[in-house]
Amino acid sequence: MDFFQCIPLREAQAIIVKELSGAVVASERVPLVDALGRVAAEAISAAENLPPFSRSTVDGFAVRSADTFGASEAAPSLFSVVGEVLMGESTDIELRPGQAAVIPTGGMVPVGADAVVMLEYAEQPDHHTLLIAKMIAPGENVVLKGEDIASGSPIVQGGQTITPARIGLLAANGVTHAQVRKAVEVAIISTGDELVEIDGPVRAGQIRDVNSYALGALFTEWGCRVTRMGIVRDSYEKFYGALAQAVEACDMVVISGGSSVGARDFTVKAIDGLGAPGVLFHGIAIKPGKPTIFGMVKGKPVFGLPGHPVAAMTVSEQLVKPAVRLLSGRQKPLERRVVQASLSRNVASSPGRDDFVGVRLTHEAGRYTATPIFGKSGLIRWMAESDGVMHIPADKSGVYEGESVPVLLLGDAD
Amino acid sequence: MDFFQCIPLREAQAIIVKELSGAVVASERVPLVDALGRVAAEAISAAENLPPFSRSTVDGFAVRSADTFGASEAAPSLFSVVGEVLMGESTDIELRPGQAAVIPTGGMVPVGADAVVMLEYAEQPDHHTLLIAKMIAPGENVVLKGEDIASGSPIVQGGQTITPARIGLLAANGVTHAQVRKAVEVAIISTGDELVEIDGPVRAGQIRDVNSYALGALFTEWGCRVTRMGIVRDSYEKFYGALAQAVEACDMVVISGGSSVGARDFTVKAIDGLGAPGVLFHGIAIKPGKPTIFGMVKGKPVFGLPGHPVAAMTVSEQLVKPAVRLLSGRQKPLERRVVQASLSRNVASSPGRDDFVGVRLTHEAGRYTATPIFGKSGLIRWMAESDGVMHIPADKSGVYEGESVPVLLLGDAD
Repeated sequence: MDFFQCIPLREAQAIIVKELSGAVVASERVPLVDALGRVAAEAISAAENLPPFSRSTVDGFAVRSADTFGASEAAPSLFSVVGEVLMGESTDIELRPGQAAVIPTGGMVPVGADAVVMLEYAEQPDHHTLLIAKMIAPGENVVLKGEDIASGSPIVQGGQTITPARIGLLAANGVTHAQVRKAVEVAIISTGDELVEIDGPVRAGQIRDVNSYALGALFTEWGCRVTRMGIVRDSYEKFYGALAQAVEACDMVVISGGSSVGARDFTVKAIDGLGAPGVLFHGIAIKPGKPTIFGMVKGKPVFGLPGHPVAAMTVSEQLVKPAVRLLSGRQKPLERRVVQASLSRNVASSPGRDDFVGVRLTHEAGRYTATPIFGKSGLIRWMAESDGVMHIPADKSGVYEGESVPVLLLGDAD
Repeated sequence: MDFFQCIPLREAQAIIVKELSGAVVASERVPLVDALGRVAAEAISAAENLPPFSRSTVDGFAVRSADTFGASEAAPSLFSVVGEVLMGESTDIELRPGQAAVIPTGGMVPVGADAVVMLEYAEQPDHHTLLIAKMIAPGENVVLKGEDIASGSPIVQGGQTITPARIGLLAANGVTHAQVRKAVEVAIISTGDELVEIDGPVRAGQIRDVNSYALGALFTEWGCRVTRMGIVRDSYEKFYGALAQAVEACDMVVISGGSSVGARDFTVKAIDGLGAPGVLFHGIAIKPGKPTIFGMVKGKPVFGLPGHPVAAMTVSEQLVKPAVRLLSGRQKPLERRVVQASLSRNVASSPGRDDFVGVRLTHEAGRYTATPIFGKSGLIRWMAESDGVMHIPADKSGVYEGESVPVLLLGDAD
């Protein structure tokens, strides 16, 4: 396959976005604790005001701010202390001009009060008297009823991921269950005459089925439920049968090794055979990952990924991840985590092709340095040692030592 | 509590690192698929060479590179094709000078051959004859036996997280099980007179127990197993009993709201009462999160976090996360994901205190802009809307519009 037959990466990504817009998996109702990391299937609005009452944010005295007008060290305002707000309890205190009430952090601001003065700015000559030596602004040290979240306002939008902070927001509003998208079900089929199961003996010329596990782990990290269908080869009929079954049972199918010379025709023929539109592209101008196949069968995406683990993982990051996000109903397009790093040496690349090179990142004095991890195509060590991937866009013919390059971060720094 | 009694953030972090060095949870043996995201408890070495044989990385012809010496368009080297290497099979072909063999990508390089020439650089006038019009370097398009991973070399170090790429490395080496650290067991106890369960009715002056859920979700994201012990108040005896039980059953205890004015004395007294050394610090110079308590009881860390969800989550990120990493045996210190962003407006801060301000990040033309999310202390919306947290170090008295500031990234961009 020549590069002339390959489509650019951006075009491949655009085809996937176009085909999968609107193809979202079903939703289910789960307890709040199980909603972590899931995608909200609908907007959730606040049923109540948060806080449900005007609260003090400090320990001090609730006052009418107007009563402190003109107060100074030389001429402090005088208040009579008429009561104490207790934590966790309602209060029926109503402040009249010249009155103040003791209030704890989190306490309910009494009727009539519009500000709280901190302990350190108040002086109490006796239990019933208070002197305040500075002017207090209306609203000072008070969070008004509904100021955080007003009743009826949306707290989570459909398509947003339920983060720990959003779990907190929902808990604060008494939301105990959430309607979230089901996990995207992904089937992985491995093909390739040289593959054997990972726990079996390896004869000369054979190699273990790495991708069922490496890709399975990657998709699991993205929130998918993965079915490893194992190694399918032997005959076209068996392969076609496995693919048909996978398309029926799952939301997405990934064929690993299905784009290698031997299996490529199988894969294309089976995808086209299972239904229209079938194969939509076949070959993309990236390195590694050129012999990638994508098609749609019965409304479900089918990927044929290269057999080399590094190529398969690189393509997964660039094409499968956006597909998973669309299927799981994520609202915003993928925003990649990118840091600018100074490159440690020259790296050549071919114009017209998007190159991805694994790098180690070091961080010193606020600056990142990226050291490319070189290795021949298919070295698996490459990916395990990378902190990130440097992207050399199709319009460049290389990048130079010392040049500032964008590096996509991979997983956790570890 | 004055700032004079508070210790700096770095000092608090150093105390935690010192106390927890060597305090690592036990390990267990799990199937490879379940090892994802866990921490390797020991080094795992390769039992075999990877690749197990010298492989071709392209479709082409295996040759002796010396035979192409001097080859050019004008004077191509002539070879006789003596056989074909089949995918997934051993080969008994042995190349003698002037001989070549057909080989697929991934095929086993025959004895005698030391390079592979790609199809596009070879011409076959007939099935048995091959012309090569360029010089081929030794090793070209070949990955040597053991070049990726040499038998006996370590593939995963103890203390490393098992990433998808490392799952791939282990699968490639036939490793079906891994010895990994157990999940860190964390108990969360909520205190505070104003708290009620999230699903119950809220009377005036009361507020829902947000932190059991928000902190629980955060710790779950970090790989912990969380036990929510609910709201404990009523009496010191009940609180002491709950804390004693939590210390017994779990690896770490987090008391939420236990540093608020009312509960602070309870918390300090109970931690000191349960065993030496007890409370190690009480108050740190950060905002939000000042009234934070940390102690060690029976070799286990106990945190008393502020009741405000934003403060509790900020302190968790700065202090609890490093503690979890140490307990789970992670080898490398936490490397935070930081991007440099241009600040959208001036932000004031107090010197002598580390300030953390939630920001929204926008990315345009390769540059990030950080827009601070302001709000009074304790607004929960703050954290749900943040893409990251801007850190204003203790030695600064503010940062200016347009200044380049480091922003710690939070979770996935969404």
